[in-house]
Amino acid sequence: MTETFSFTLNATDGAARTGVIHTPRGDIRTPAFMPVGTAATVKAMMPDSVAATGADILLGNTYHLMLRPTAERIAHLGGLHRFMNWNKPILTDSGGFQVMSLSDLRKMSEEGVTFASHVDGSRHFLSPERSMEIQRLLGSDIVMAFDECPALPATDEAVARSMRMSMRWAQRSRDAFGDRPGHALFGIMQGGTNRELREESAEALRQIGFDGYAVGGLAVGEGQELMFSTLDYAPGFLPEDKPRYLMGVGKPDDIVGAVERGIDMMDCVLPSRSGRTGQAWTRRGQVNIKNARHMDDPRPLDEHCSCPACRNYSRAYLHHVFKAQEILSAMLLTWHNLHYYQELMQGLRDAIAAGRLNEFVAQFHALRAEGDIEPL
Amino acid sequence: MTETFSFTLNATDGAARTGVIHTPRGDIRTPAFMPVGTAATVKAMMPDSVAATGADILLGNTYHLMLRPTAERIAHLGGLHRFMNWNKPILTDSGGFQVMSLSDLRKMSEEGVTFASHVDGSRHFLSPERSMEIQRLLGSDIVMAFDECPALPATDEAVARSMRMSMRWAQRSRDAFGDRPGHALFGIMQGGTNRELREESAEALRQIGFDGYAVGGLAVGEGQELMFSTLDYAPGFLPEDKPRYLMGVGKPDDIVGAVERGIDMMDCVLPSRSGRTGQAWTRRGQVNIKNARHMDDPRPLDEHCSCPACRNYSRAYLHHVFKAQEILSAMLLTWHNLHYYQELMQGLRDAIAAGRLNEFVAQFHALRAEGDIEPL
Repeated sequence: MTETFSFTLNATDGAARTGVIHTPRGDIRTPAFMPVGTAATVKAMMPDSVAATGADILLGNTYHLMLRPTAERIAHLGGLHRFMNWNKPILTDSGGFQVMSLSDLRKMSEEGVTFASHVDGSRHFLSPERSMEIQRLLGSDIVMAFDECPALPATDEAVARSMRMSMRWAQRSRDAFGDRPGHALFGIMQGGTNRELREESAEALRQIGFDGYAVGGLAVGEGQELMFSTLDYAPGFLPEDKPRYLMGVGKPDDIVGAVERGIDMMDCVLPSRSGRTGQAWTRRGQVNIKNARHMDDPRPLDEHCSCPACRNYSRAYLHHVFKAQEILSAMLLTWHNLHYYQELMQGLRDAIAAGRLNEFVAQFHALRAEGDIEPL
Repeated sequence: MTETFSFTLNATDGAARTGVIHTPRGDIRTPAFMPVGTAATVKAMMPDSVAATGADILLGNTYHLMLRPTAERIAHLGGLHRFMNWNKPILTDSGGFQVMSLSDLRKMSEEGVTFASHVDGSRHFLSPERSMEIQRLLGSDIVMAFDECPALPATDEAVARSMRMSMRWAQRSRDAFGDRPGHALFGIMQGGTNRELREESAEALRQIGFDGYAVGGLAVGEGQELMFSTLDYAPGFLPEDKPRYLMGVGKPDDIVGAVERGIDMMDCVLPSRSGRTGQAWTRRGQVNIKNARHMDDPRPLDEHCSCPACRNYSRAYLHHVFKAQEILSAMLLTWHNLHYYQELMQGLRDAIAAGRLNEFVAQFHALRAEGDIEPL
């Protein structure tokens, strides 16, 4: 344990990196995948089960928490860690992205954004200063600067205008965050898929100075090819000695490609959301457990997986509880998916440390290409 | 562990009894409360969590399992214990009660009952012989005889006619069950709230001979007073050296009253169902977690409870996850409720063994009369 926030880079393999982020609440092994605990819970999971999958850090959503139960209430109750019974690090987003995707009646200005809650229609305001205040009230270990994330495709002009406002907001976030030892503030690079704009954004952030840097504005509909071609250069614009976080990514192959391109941290609702819709992620790709082919199958989802769903249950059982709309279906498949994601991250970390990432990635794609085991 | 099914009575206190049912799959401490695993899962609970609450045995529902995934499929997959990953004893009901309460287009005859599935409308037939076959396919440790359970109120004539058919079905169940060492068959006493009919039914069952005896036909709408006044005499008609099972009971005060009257086993969906609707059962009575009074309350549901919901979370958090319709709400409250029920059973067992049941029951009622802790 440490009293300050720091990042140690242990090894690189090509552009890929492995290391450790040290925080007063514990270490985060990188590349790291952060499960999403939107409303102060990783859906369908006990916190100790989330930790058992190997997660070192969770993501919390400022937008959801500010609306319900409110940041002030969580602060009054001792902060988000205590509230949700998760004592390891928490990263919170700034709220900006979800205001854009979830709220109604948005009105944006240089000052910030007013909007109506999707829960009860109540009016709220978010700005760099208010976002910093909310994230402080939550007790977040890694705070994200408040930014605007334009949907793609968009014109270069629109992306540039939005990015430059986000950079002004980044400075205001930095000023409002102040000096909080043991807590980190991450800046967010914007610029869409335009290399010059990405470089301009990165330079603006470096001038301000952050504890880590996110690549924002990707995974918003541009497709994997365009995301990867942007990641071919964008992380390189950021300081080497700070963690690099790709927000909202992704599917397993997105994650592998991002790590290959120098990303250290990622988050996504996909493994937990998939778990609630009968979708399992395995080394052999995606398995739709509601498919009738599993109805009589006594085999586990993945015979090499050590999660409770694979260790203790047949595909036939997982099929049954999904069809019967049992809560246990979401519990088991979410656990499996988070376990698989964390196992993938461990594999990536080990491969980078051993200098054999190419081999690992080739195996990863080869096994997926084989597809699911044959029906009985 | 033992290779046969047997019952040891260890102590009595008034009409109340405590003992152990020995089965090849493990001991069942009595008085025992059996959580209900309707569709091969105790809703919102992992099996190891159910065991952690102190449950020695689960109840499975023949009606639900025969329809989905079917008894034949479960048998093919290694039986219900393996299917649902529960290695302790399982009791299965006969299906008769739920055919009456859940299915459509029922047609009853001396032979059995035909009905339409509530899941997909498919036609099915249940009889004593088919119920025994299904429960054998499931691998149930304690098999219930197939009976008819008339809703109350009903005329004495209707209750008598139904009871006598159930007694003929009890003989057919006994014949069809055959000789299965290590597995038990329980007969079910009927007769409504009529003492003479109860006595007649008990005598018929004793003549046939069972490994245990259920008091059926109660908790079907007659009210606690009439249930208790029936339990004042009905258990006494049954053999002392066999377990006595009161089906479908109940609320905590129902359970305490039944144990006082000589009941050894009970089951009810109440603790798990309540957990999904925001109702918690505590030593101080019922707590409605969705009530706004809990919104800012940092205190646990019950400071003396050692379940995960009480040990790790505030009422404010439990309120929040219920309002946010998070699956974790059902998980935590179900766990708490099952824990509370099992703790109550342990208290009853200890009190009977120590000969101080009256004192325990007085304390039980006194604390409930005080009601929930005062709002802050």
